Amino acid sequence: MSTVSSYQTGALSVPKSAAIAQMSMAPARHRYPLFPVLTEGCPLASTTDIQFPLEIEFALNRVSSDDFRGMASKQDRYASLLTPVVAELYLGEGYTPLVSADRALGRSNSSRQQIYIKDESQNPTGSHKDRLNRLTVSAAVLSNSPGIVVSSSGNHGVSAAAYAARAGLPCILITMPGICPIYMRMANAYGAAAVAVPAEMRWPLMRQVVAELGFHPVSNVTTCHTGHPFGPEGYKPISYEIAATLGCAPTAVFVPTGYAELLFGIHKGFVELRALDLIDTVPQLFSVEPAARGPLALAMRTGADIGCVEALPTDAAAIACTVSSYRGVVALRDSGGRALTVTDDALRAAQSAMSRSGIYPELSAAAGLAALKQLLAEDHAFDGPVVVVQTGGGVKDPESSDVSIPVIDPTWPALRTVLSERYGIRVCS
Amino acid sequence: MSTVSSYQTGALSVPKSAAIAQMSMAPARHRYPLFPVLTEGCPLASTTDIQFPLEIEFALNRVSSDDFRGMASKQDRYASLLTPVVAELYLGEGYTPLVSADRALGRSNSSRQQIYIKDESQNPTGSHKDRLNRLTVSAAVLSNSPGIVVSSSGNHGVSAAAYAARAGLPCILITMPGICPIYMRMANAYGAAAVAVPAEMRWPLMRQVVAELGFHPVSNVTTCHTGHPFGPEGYKPISYEIAATLGCAPTAVFVPTGYAELLFGIHKGFVELRALDLIDTVPQLFSVEPAARGPLALAMRTGADIGCVEALPTDAAAIACTVSSYRGVVALRDSGGRALTVTDDALRAAQSAMSRSGIYPELSAAAGLAALKQLLAEDHAFDGPVVVVQTGGGVKDPESSDVSIPVIDPTWPALRTVLSERYGIRVCS
Repeated sequence: MSTVSSYQTGALSVPKSAAIAQMSMAPARHRYPLFPVLTEGCPLASTTDIQFPLEIEFALNRVSSDDFRGMASKQDRYASLLTPVVAELYLGEGYTPLVSADRALGRSNSSRQQIYIKDESQNPTGSHKDRLNRLTVSAAVLSNSPGIVVSSSGNHGVSAAAYAARAGLPCILITMPGICPIYMRMANAYGAAAVAVPAEMRWPLMRQVVAELGFHPVSNVTTCHTGHPFGPEGYKPISYEIAATLGCAPTAVFVPTGYAELLFGIHKGFVELRALDLIDTVPQLFSVEPAARGPLALAMRTGADIGCVEALPTDAAAIACTVSSYRGVVALRDSGGRALTVTDDALRAAQSAMSRSGIYPELSAAAGLAALKQLLAEDHAFDGPVVVVQTGGGVKDPESSDVSIPVIDPTWPALRTVLSERYGIRVCS
Repeated sequence: MSTVSSYQTGALSVPKSAAIAQMSMAPARHRYPLFPVLTEGCPLASTTDIQFPLEIEFALNRVSSDDFRGMASKQDRYASLLTPVVAELYLGEGYTPLVSADRALGRSNSSRQQIYIKDESQNPTGSHKDRLNRLTVSAAVLSNSPGIVVSSSGNHGVSAAAYAARAGLPCILITMPGICPIYMRMANAYGAAAVAVPAEMRWPLMRQVVAELGFHPVSNVTTCHTGHPFGPEGYKPISYEIAATLGCAPTAVFVPTGYAELLFGIHKGFVELRALDLIDTVPQLFSVEPAARGPLALAMRTGADIGCVEALPTDAAAIACTVSSYRGVVALRDSGGRALTVTDDALRAAQSAMSRSGIYPELSAAAGLAALKQLLAEDHAFDGPVVVVQTGGGVKDPESSDVSIPVIDPTWPALRTVLSERYGIRVCS
């Protein structure tokens, strides 16, 4: 079994990790050493119908609960419950703020029910994906990989490119034609070699890069989603941070959900806090998918391990999956959670409400608020604090609403007209 | 004199502030009550040639140094040394990470000299301006203003729009034709009424909005830059956070400089830490302006209070000023600092170096690194930690370098060609 001392880190510094094994999420729970990283899912349990993801086993008895008390935003404070991180790859990910959702919900701040937004857009590249890529790119470095490869047309790829740059590793970003120019510009800035190929060719080409060059894949390479075994562990600090800020576990957490890596990581984080006796209960998780797809919601309805749906159109690109991951089923089942879906119209309304409260999410990132609004409209009650995860900023959003700014005569009457139209402010001349 | 108890806050919550007066920065140091906010500079000392800014006086004996120890990222932890903030306006600003600059400088991490980047792009709207606007928009709320008005074609306006949205106040954003579409989209998302007028008409129109509607101006309205008296105080926590993370004051801080509000705020923050006996020395500050302009550098060379330069072309839009502010002279003089300038080519090289290390700044935000690289190339030595402030993210940067992503045949030979060109990776087929 690998231990910290066996990593070939050269001059790199690796804080202490209590990770001890890769463990299959299949019912048989096969165990494997921590390295090499099994990026193609559990070799023993997977079939052509379902590939089972792996999660990481930690020696919780080696973790000090002191690390999890208080609010300190110290670099790699939570390293013991992460897979081994390379200290030098730190870009400031994590420790995102928890801000009130009152204005976004049109409520007064005197409401009894505490509802917060966890703003993941305040990560280094503007989304929660930075938490994952710190771990997956660290895994590439610790595996002595000559480079990384990622298939993505959004936040995941941009984030992987940033961490690859930090590691000094080549990064191949495989995307589709028509990728939003802002993502292109960022990937280029970080120095990635980005190429666009037809959508269905992305994964075969990615697997070829892995096979031919030995590059480390930091996004999924299997038919069902198994993803990188280390990735979801990077989301656990979201839970640690929430509990530290609130002083307790929330009652419910709403999570925009694509392949459910975030959902699973948040659940596992709370489970660990309970195991460390730092919280009393594990919150109920609500996954939120676009109504046009919703493979996890389908799996939950049918009792299947995996849901598979038609690719009906939705603008929520970041969470528009046609196949769900087994991780999602596990997180909802074990937290007594629920799979919710929201229409694109509801997403747009929530995006606007959140933006008008000063927090500008990309369309998909408004899913949590959209679903919560639905439940609140149905008089659903929560008996403790509720957290909505805002997964990424709107600044990169290809969905740009009206961007015209009127060029006016530089006169008071012209400005008055704009104010009257926009705010109904009427001023006598 | 205004005290906290006199604010008409309604149901709003205002953490305790030790701010007691507005104080003229003119040599005579006239004092005024904290409210009304003197947004047109010192009324007694200003002339048509120079308008003197105001800063805020604090009762340091009412501040507990305990608030400034440790690393806790608690909402409004530093409120005692800020002007009164409305708790409800919190968007998660501040507590930005301090990350190693080693890779951006092409140094190994074993270098003796510690050099860090303070990444202000990880603020709610992606720049340091959020720290300022939390305070200026709080001032608008506490002044019972019916709205806010800002003149900006960049980060300042977008940030003001977000905090106005948070406050539920109308926001008039006066900009120029040709503003970068990303700023436009953000301002619209936050619900601002944005209008474009010819550049020279922005301030007259802004003054008219103030006069006719009583809107609170959160950007400068005077000929020389005086700015909002409360604004620069919002930058002081940058210094508190740096000192808390390092456990000491840095030796030098490099600051991209336009109107020097940031420079002054950082200096004042360290001066306060020394007054509270939390650090031993105040760091030397280096202002960094574009070589094509550099009004502060001119003022320092000539010993003038204000520098005024021709509007020669530069792409560093966020720091492309033709007139300097008196605050800048004070900050450099009192810190034994220096006014540096960098060419656009040096900015582009630094922007690229920083991006290739995983931190993507807008062009102006690379100024600190560009200037530091110049000094290091001249064998300038520092006898302690050095901090470079990265003021804002490149994602909004209108200066987009090459954004083309090649659409390739989804074949291995086609990808090999890209890899060979980009990274020099050659693979036999």
